[in-house]
Amino acid sequence: MSSAVARSSIYRYRIAFSDCDPAQIVFFANYFKWFDTSAREFFTACGIPSWRETEKATGMIGMPLVDAQAKFLSPATYGEDIEIESSVETWNTKSFVMRHVARRGDTVLAEGREVRVFAVRDKVDAQRIVAIPIPEYIRAACS
Amino acid sequence: MSSAVARSSIYRYRIAFSDCDPAQIVFFANYFKWFDTSAREFFTACGIPSWRETEKATGMIGMPLVDAQAKFLSPATYGEDIEIESSVETWNTKSFVMRHVARRGDTVLAEGREVRVFAVRDKVDAQRIVAIPIPEYIRAACS
Amino acid sequence: MSSAVARSSIYRYRIAFSDCDPAQIVFFANYFKWFDTSAREFFTACGIPSWRETEKATGMIGMPLVDAQAKFLSPATYGEDIEIESSVETWNTKSFVMRHVARRGDTVLAEGREVRVFAVRDKVDAQRIVAIPIPEYIRAACS
Amino acid sequence: MSSAVARSSIYRYRIAFSDCDPAQIVFFANYFKWFDTSAREFFTACGIPSWRETEKATGMIGMPLVDAQAKFLSPATYGEDIEIESSVETWNTKSFVMRHVARRGDTVLAEGREVRVFAVRDKVDAQRIVAIPIPEYIRAACS
Repeated sequence: MSSAVARSSIYRYRIAFSDCDPAQIVFFANYFKWFDTSAREFFTACGIPSWRETEKATGMIGMPLVDAQAKFLSPATYGEDIEIESSVETWNTKSFVMRHVARRGDTVLAEGREVRVFAVRDKVDAQRIVAIPIPEYIRAACS
Repeated sequence: MSSAVARSSIYRYRIAFSDCDPAQIVFFANYFKWFDTSAREFFTACGIPSWRETEKATGMIGMPLVDAQAKFLSPATYGEDIEIESSVETWNTKSFVMRHVARRGDTVLAEGREVRVFAVRDKVDAQRIVAIPIPEYIRAACS
Repeated sequence: MSSAVARSSIYRYRIAFSDCDPAQIVFFANYFKWFDTSAREFFTACGIPSWRETEKATGMIGMPLVDAQAKFLSPATYGEDIEIESSVETWNTKSFVMRHVARRGDTVLAEGREVRVFAVRDKVDAQRIVAIPIPEYIRAACS
Repeated sequence: MSSAVARSSIYRYRIAFSDCDPAQIVFFANYFKWFDTSAREFFTACGIPSWRETEKATGMIGMPLVDAQAKFLSPATYGEDIEIESSVETWNTKSFVMRHVARRGDTVLAEGREVRVFAVRDKVDAQRIVAIPIPEYIRAACS
């Protein structure tokens, strides 16, 4: 019988002075940056190589966002240690949903969800980016 | 009969090299930063003084976010000029919803929504932040 | 007789809330970011195409820094309009020196100098970056 | 006989995707940000409380920069672990010089120097910032 518990990873970070704004709390957009870093750490923990290597091997340049959302529950400030727990909530055919929870100790600071795709460069126009079906080996490695 | 068209402002920005990531497109969290800047520009256009001045006059330190969400529709890169159109979609009792649309010419790049509150510092613990009812003069100035 | 006045460009920017730190002034590293943006604007004003285009045409991926230095003379804060004046102070064989002055009205806020090179990717290891002699057409276009 | 070895601290950081620019290497201004964070970590390691607490206790709001300089010796990219070693090189009457070295393993990536002051808010104009003589207890705690 398979477990219903999704695989997750933890990204640890100490908030820097320059992450905070004139209200002396974390500028909210930094949570989106840290969720992104934590998302990449999740895939690293699952054994997925860097996008530099996947680009050389298969053309895959990364996992651009289609949608991002976060709730901000409690303020935090510099010098504080936070943890971000990240997991894949849903695998769709061409997109997947990541969930992130940022905590300082037991206090939940922010919760986020991202819809992402895996992308390659368009063959005709390298400036364009095209979503590909979720590679089966990634899904298998991360489940 | 009053018009149903909400007041809006336009924030213009040229994307910088350092706003882009190794995929050579805008790093998505920058849109949240620019939406925030555009939100402040909206209030400036409505005649609301800086938070430095409101803090001195009334204790109000700014408009922290409770929730933020964005859809990313088309990639953009450095050297490109974008416009962000911002407006207040809904005024609630203690919170309000801002809507932002980022465009490069006629192409919509990203659309966002933010739920914000106006905040003062807690009298006992200055590190805590407390939401206040939407000040009537702000709502009047911005409608 | 030719003028000794170097060609210069002006980059205009309004300081954002999120550019400022808990001391409520611009976080100093942002000046380095803005100097970089202004450096690129200088080359754009001289007619040099984006690095995306030079990479396709000649392999040149940009102008990485070898050294950067700035003096911070007066604090600035959000909502203030600044101008950065940028010019090439010296062209060497393989490097060049840019000078940047950030002003708010007549007040000099910061002055910086950058030593940069023009770079291509190493043919063997694309992760390595190699400085090339200053291209004559760039020097001619920018003098 | 006193030791000539200055006290130093180490700040560890894994480079994030969003710290890198379209040339796929760390955007240089991030080193200045990390040096700043490492500078604060140095003082934390010496037992100096956060600027929030020093502001309440003595009015001191932080240690703004007067000058910053860095040399960039080797590129780095995301997923790489770096260490920044920070120390005070010189204590002057009203300013001090910090030195930072960023390394990935044995490879020196960047070296920086900052001239900083300790500052309080001006009593008449709270937007102005005034340098104070180096507090003796800080110098003693950090030597």
